[in-house]
Amino acid sequence: MPRWKPDAPERLQTAALELFDHQGFERTTVAEIVQRAELTQRTFFNHFADKREVLFRLSSQLQQEIVREIEAGDDTLPPLDAVVRALEVVGDRMFEDRRALMARRYAIVAANPELQERELSKNAALTEAIATVLQARCGDAETAFLAAGAAMLAQQVAFRNWCRPGETRTLHDLLQDALRSLRTTVEPA
Amino acid sequence: MPRWKPDAPERLQTAALELFDHQGFERTTVAEIVQRAELTQRTFFNHFADKREVLFRLSSQLQQEIVREIEAGDDTLPPLDAVVRALEVVGDRMFEDRRALMARRYAIVAANPELQERELSKNAALTEAIATVLQARCGDAETAFLAAGAAMLAQQVAFRNWCRPGETRTLHDLLQDALRSLRTTVEPA
Repeated sequence: MPRWKPDAPERLQTAALELFDHQGFERTTVAEIVQRAELTQRTFFNHFADKREVLFRLSSQLQQEIVREIEAGDDTLPPLDAVVRALEVVGDRMFEDRRALMARRYAIVAANPELQERELSKNAALTEAIATVLQARCGDAETAFLAAGAAMLAQQVAFRNWCRPGETRTLHDLLQDALRSLRTTVEPA
Repeated sequence: MPRWKPDAPERLQTAALELFDHQGFERTTVAEIVQRAELTQRTFFNHFADKREVLFRLSSQLQQEIVREIEAGDDTLPPLDAVVRALEVVGDRMFEDRRALMARRYAIVAANPELQERELSKNAALTEAIATVLQARCGDAETAFLAAGAAMLAQQVAFRNWCRPGETRTLHDLLQDALRSLRTTVEPA
């Protein structure tokens, strides 16, 4: 990234989300996004293949950071707790101060089937990446996959609640709540 | 469906899966599928929009039957158990005697990113449909979503194991195993 414009991807994302929100994802062009962000099309295409990619700009960073946190974390924690701790740390770092932006993104993705499909793919890839790193720690592929899937399920509930208008609790706290609900739901009667 | 050809969709699916398996999904044409099934293109397009749909022909039936089983089931069961019981009953009825066909389908979908995306979408829609019917019973959207997601996670593990060459246990038994593993993974240390 050139040193004189370190915030281009974030400026492009903010501009894009505002436009998607006001006039719809389909009707927004790259030309409008760069105009609003006061950048050039060239800069846009240096960072993103298309306007859809703007919505997923944090996905690969998210995956890398979660995997790194699990690897660096306390390896005596049970697999599910190891993932939840990593989701908390990375959530605090990447999401907590971007709540309005993330909530807007959430609504845009939820309203568009094609974007939802892409979101499902990214989440499935993230689940597999988490399972892979867990398996290296716990040695069991099935436990690793179940812990990754269960953590992602709790995260999905927490993220949905965090994006609700009027909700003030942190993503961290909402993830702890969702984990407690999951445990209650899954424990034998 | 006309009375004189009640098995056309199944014949088309079997022919398609054999061809996808031997020569790949991309390289197989509808003309080849109908030739192998000894049916016409017209019959094919009466049942399926395209060759991809052949792989998903049981999806809407699966969803309807699972929802119906949950609605008809013992309403004193906890939500997760109600879903697992429905998955067992429907699995016994729809899948158990089609293991070779389903295992072949599983491998074809797993090898193709576009088909995998579609499978993820169908699974997400099934999870939502299960959550909706559970919510009508238990009154709580979050518990309903977590129970649906947890059951689908166990089902995913069970189905993957059931499709493994050499595995002889029933899908029903493998689902019970996966549910036990999930409970162990999720319970607090």
